[in-house]
Amino acid sequence: MSAAPRGTLYLVPNTLDFGAKSGIPALQHVLPLGVIEVAARLPHWVAENAKTTRAFLKRVDAVVALAQPLQAIDIRELPRPQKGRAAAPSVDEWSPLLAPALRGEDVGLISEAGLPAVADPGAALVDAAHRAGLRVVALPGPSSLLLALAASGLNGQSFAFVGYLPVDAAERGARIRELEALSRRERQTQLMIETPYRNEALLAALLAHLGSNTRLAVSCGLTLDDGFSRTDSVAGWKAAPTALPADLPVVFSLLAA
Amino acid sequence: MSAAPRGTLYLVPNTLDFGAKSGIPALQHVLPLGVIEVAARLPHWVAENAKTTRAFLKRVDAVVALAQPLQAIDIRELPRPQKGRAAAPSVDEWSPLLAPALRGEDVGLISEAGLPAVADPGAALVDAAHRAGLRVVALPGPSSLLLALAASGLNGQSFAFVGYLPVDAAERGARIRELEALSRRERQTQLMIETPYRNEALLAALLAHLGSNTRLAVSCGLTLDDGFSRTDSVAGWKAAPTALPADLPVVFSLLAA
Repeated sequence: MSAAPRGTLYLVPNTLDFGAKSGIPALQHVLPLGVIEVAARLPHWVAENAKTTRAFLKRVDAVVALAQPLQAIDIRELPRPQKGRAAAPSVDEWSPLLAPALRGEDVGLISEAGLPAVADPGAALVDAAHRAGLRVVALPGPSSLLLALAASGLNGQSFAFVGYLPVDAAERGARIRELEALSRRERQTQLMIETPYRNEALLAALLAHLGSNTRLAVSCGLTLDDGFSRTDSVAGWKAAPTALPADLPVVFSLLAA
Repeated sequence: MSAAPRGTLYLVPNTLDFGAKSGIPALQHVLPLGVIEVAARLPHWVAENAKTTRAFLKRVDAVVALAQPLQAIDIRELPRPQKGRAAAPSVDEWSPLLAPALRGEDVGLISEAGLPAVADPGAALVDAAHRAGLRVVALPGPSSLLLALAASGLNGQSFAFVGYLPVDAAERGARIRELEALSRRERQTQLMIETPYRNEALLAALLAHLGSNTRLAVSCGLTLDDGFSRTDSVAGWKAAPTALPADLPVVFSLLAA
């Protein structure tokens, strides 16, 4: 390691309106001005998607002028995750993306929505940054998981995010019953997500497999004008269903009675 | 239920600088302007602590003028949780706090730091609001748990927050080994917190009971100028310890190798 000053890896939150067609808030409605200011000056970015990052930087520029022209900003995409790969990546493997920080310049990490590295790619890059001795700073912003949990009224003293459930119907039913038993045993809220076009199918599976008294919460379009959060017993959901959109992310949470 | 219009229960994020003596950011550095605007107009609040809520509202007023004088704003404290109480509270029990919303006015819920109802009181009030048919909206802001998780570089696709560990040394050691086994089996990051004056004791217990290759992350002073996040193997922590403050909250995260 050289004694040269190191740059910082900033984890920059994106808005939650990715894919939304209406009710989209202004950038300063959902991101702190301090975060927009940092984003406006960063010369290097590692992104889940370069195109949406350019769109994000245009929204930044409308609030705080970019320190350099958009075309001059260095945006590189994260490598796609390789299925079945073993072990954590070595610092060497990530060094092209971290090179600017290793020579003293700041780098931003951003995903298409919400906080990078949470329910999103990027954690391996952050881990590599720690292994390389870089400073890592996560900037505050919207997280659909935590907003959904807060809005659910379910247990926020103990909770788990388990990602996606299996697609196969039998496996998914078994996983739902397993999560309900875990929730009952640990009194732990279980949060999960689904690809938007399968939102209705996941809701139907949850209603089919969960007990009547288990509380089920759904949050949809968080931070959008037309977003909503509903918490009810499984029996209540069955008695009065709510249609879910097929084109927006939904966070599902359950707490066994 | 009457057909009268209902108010909204807004979950308002607070800053993460509660108890900090230095490095405190300006309000608009960490909260979106849209959130500050909502906070400035709310006539009713339910608070973890009335005094810190008045201090928060003074910071709001410095950015966006309050719609009414501070003395005219209705601030009520959440009842302290009663240990060992059974069952969820009935709507009746919470109705004095929700009464303004039931007659059509908006109410804010706020805790001393971060998002209300997450690792903080308030979830029971949110649940009662859903049972009463009120609209619940969680506003975006900093969450120490999610910022710590993002900054850790540990697995953000599956994670659990388990709150506080037992104080008794033997029970705590057993719980740490249980969480490490769970983390290995589910490949799930486990997050926990501690009362600040016991931060060092928890770190020592984690280093004593976790395997050498387990990755351990600590985030301290999130959003403060002098905050830091460190992720290393347990062996790396033992070889080069970092002192933790005894007066600031710390989030601990672990992922078994």
